[in-house]
Amino acid sequence: MMDITHLRALTPGCTETAYFDNAGSGLHTENVTRTVVDHLLLESRIGGYAAADREHERVEGVYASVARLLNARPDEIALLDSATRAWDMAFHAIDFRPGDRILASRSEYPSNGLAFLQAKRRHGVVVEPIPDDEHGQVDLDALAEMLAQGGVRLVAVNHVPTYDGLVQPAAEIGALARRAGALYLLDACQTAGQLPLDVRELGCHLLSAAGRKFLRGPRGTGFLYVDREVVTQLEPPALDLRSATWTGPDSYEIRPDARRFETWERSVADLLGLGAAVDEALDLGLDPIRARVDTLAERLRAGLSDLDGVRVHDRGQVRSGIVTFTKEGREAQQLVHGLRASGVTVSASQPSSARFDIRPGKPSDVVRASAHYYNTDDELGRLLDCVAQL
Amino acid sequence: MMDITHLRALTPGCTETAYFDNAGSGLHTENVTRTVVDHLLLESRIGGYAAADREHERVEGVYASVARLLNARPDEIALLDSATRAWDMAFHAIDFRPGDRILASRSEYPSNGLAFLQAKRRHGVVVEPIPDDEHGQVDLDALAEMLAQGGVRLVAVNHVPTYDGLVQPAAEIGALARRAGALYLLDACQTAGQLPLDVRELGCHLLSAAGRKFLRGPRGTGFLYVDREVVTQLEPPALDLRSATWTGPDSYEIRPDARRFETWERSVADLLGLGAAVDEALDLGLDPIRARVDTLAERLRAGLSDLDGVRVHDRGQVRSGIVTFTKEGREAQQLVHGLRASGVTVSASQPSSARFDIRPGKPSDVVRASAHYYNTDDELGRLLDCVAQL
Repeated sequence: MMDITHLRALTPGCTETAYFDNAGSGLHTENVTRTVVDHLLLESRIGGYAAADREHERVEGVYASVARLLNARPDEIALLDSATRAWDMAFHAIDFRPGDRILASRSEYPSNGLAFLQAKRRHGVVVEPIPDDEHGQVDLDALAEMLAQGGVRLVAVNHVPTYDGLVQPAAEIGALARRAGALYLLDACQTAGQLPLDVRELGCHLLSAAGRKFLRGPRGTGFLYVDREVVTQLEPPALDLRSATWTGPDSYEIRPDARRFETWERSVADLLGLGAAVDEALDLGLDPIRARVDTLAERLRAGLSDLDGVRVHDRGQVRSGIVTFTKEGREAQQLVHGLRASGVTVSASQPSSARFDIRPGKPSDVVRASAHYYNTDDELGRLLDCVAQL
Repeated sequence: MMDITHLRALTPGCTETAYFDNAGSGLHTENVTRTVVDHLLLESRIGGYAAADREHERVEGVYASVARLLNARPDEIALLDSATRAWDMAFHAIDFRPGDRILASRSEYPSNGLAFLQAKRRHGVVVEPIPDDEHGQVDLDALAEMLAQGGVRLVAVNHVPTYDGLVQPAAEIGALARRAGALYLLDACQTAGQLPLDVRELGCHLLSAAGRKFLRGPRGTGFLYVDREVVTQLEPPALDLRSATWTGPDSYEIRPDARRFETWERSVADLLGLGAAVDEALDLGLDPIRARVDTLAERLRAGLSDLDGVRVHDRGQVRSGIVTFTKEGREAQQLVHGLRASGVTVSASQPSSARFDIRPGKPSDVVRASAHYYNTDDELGRLLDCVAQL
């Protein structure tokens, strides 16, 4: 059982605002902030490289922690400056050939959509959105049929969409993709830190995630999992002297592990902060975190649904901590500002920006309230009261 | 006239070590560290996105500061997580065609060398190292001849090599490249913060630089200058929703300014720290900084040359704050450790890793002592004494 009062006391932001923007950028614990600051102070005393040398083992420990979070091996982890970078490095490392098919979830994040179109222009791939089922999730039967037609190089799915409460059936998708011999790239940007992740169960070859969201790590951090069975087939779009060695005027050798996706320079302070955040999540346990997030999010959905003129837009049989809604006669951005003025932090999100999602009646903008384990029933009440009054 | 005692008092590391690794990672002032830490604390109180919103104008100010540093316009600046990222994003944005010629300085950084070979494999470009002149610099006559042969798409030069004290004749190279209609990409990783930079004078279309080195900014920061005359010809290798908009299932639009090279997520704290560091350099003035660095580095070279068995390897008619040397019978790494034990911070550097640099007698490893304006004659003396005694 989590001691929520205690956990809130470790999070300075809990006294400032009822914070429901964990899908944007989660609140840091004092420990995470202190970890980053301590390293910055060490750097200011002895210099950035000497500080990195001194903390070499702790840096290695971050790989081990992220590996534990994903049930992966440390050599399957690359630490990067964002989830987008992680996803991009993986996606653009695939040696697509003309006519290769990419099957993508309809809820795909706009940045991923842009990358698909770049691959289409550069390599002549064919990009096919997978139909949704009646719950708004990837239609597994449709996916199976599309895979059976052959020629699928990649299945790309975002596990938890940024503007919708649904959770995609990622493991079922993985089983189908693997059986068809396709690569499977899972965008777990909104998943890490709020739901358990097990790459063996999920069956993904590649998984990208952010440090700053539900993991509550520093901004400017992210990571990539790369299945060691496929890593040497993937040449990162940009190499540097961390990822490869210039062996001769006309030759180079790329590292054999996931770090081929990294670059030499990075903020070691932020990276150690990420490690601290991952360790905190692991200490609490992803199953209890998931249970608590689910309880709060479901309560919030029920409360919102009871309000006049308010509509909850979350789809899916399984749901995340992301709760999306609209209120009649109010723009999402207006509601966000109104709530902020009352000390409640939420954000606005644009389903309209996701161009594969063509369902009828899709809202253009929604308010996104993303709950985490440190939220309370009292805060849910404040949020509901404010939405009712605005 | 700089008040060195005062400037040292603002730099906590000055009391800890005689610091000569500014080419690795410069010591931060208290103000730079405090700027980063203050923003981290703000984030921990109100959340990462709300904090970024609140500091929006200061973030915009960082673009203005970097633009002032380079005599560029703010819309010609992209802020990134490293100089390598900046260089890579620019280089891989060029739509090379088979047979395009790339002319590169022999002192090119290994990461750049790897990128050339990637472009060769992917696009069939031809990579040609430019001969050195008798000073070890780009031979301008040879370059002019190579350009006259036609078909040159890109001239790539690293302004100040990482393992050699020389400064390339960047403006002269720029004039030749422009006249021949070639793109000119200047790697100013080791230049920014120690030498004045003026992109109009240099004639470069693209310039990349690091925040953490002579600029004394946080690790995990860098920037890219993109001449507005060429920016729309360059499609970044990876787009995201900061750099472009997904306008329809099959279409996108890229931003018309240099920020097309950025990604949405980044550490705002580190970015503000970079801005503080740039402002400090601008306040001191790059001309006085350059004069002081030059004086110290020349004194150091003279002192080292007087020591038994010590050889200074710096070439070039014009020199930077980077001083490279070897001592007979000692490995570079041994010397680095020995100096560190005596409270003097230097680093080792590998000319051997630069595969275009094929001069006879090139040392495999050198000690690199990189001086900055805050160093003192007393510290030079300590460094020289230690090298003599080791």
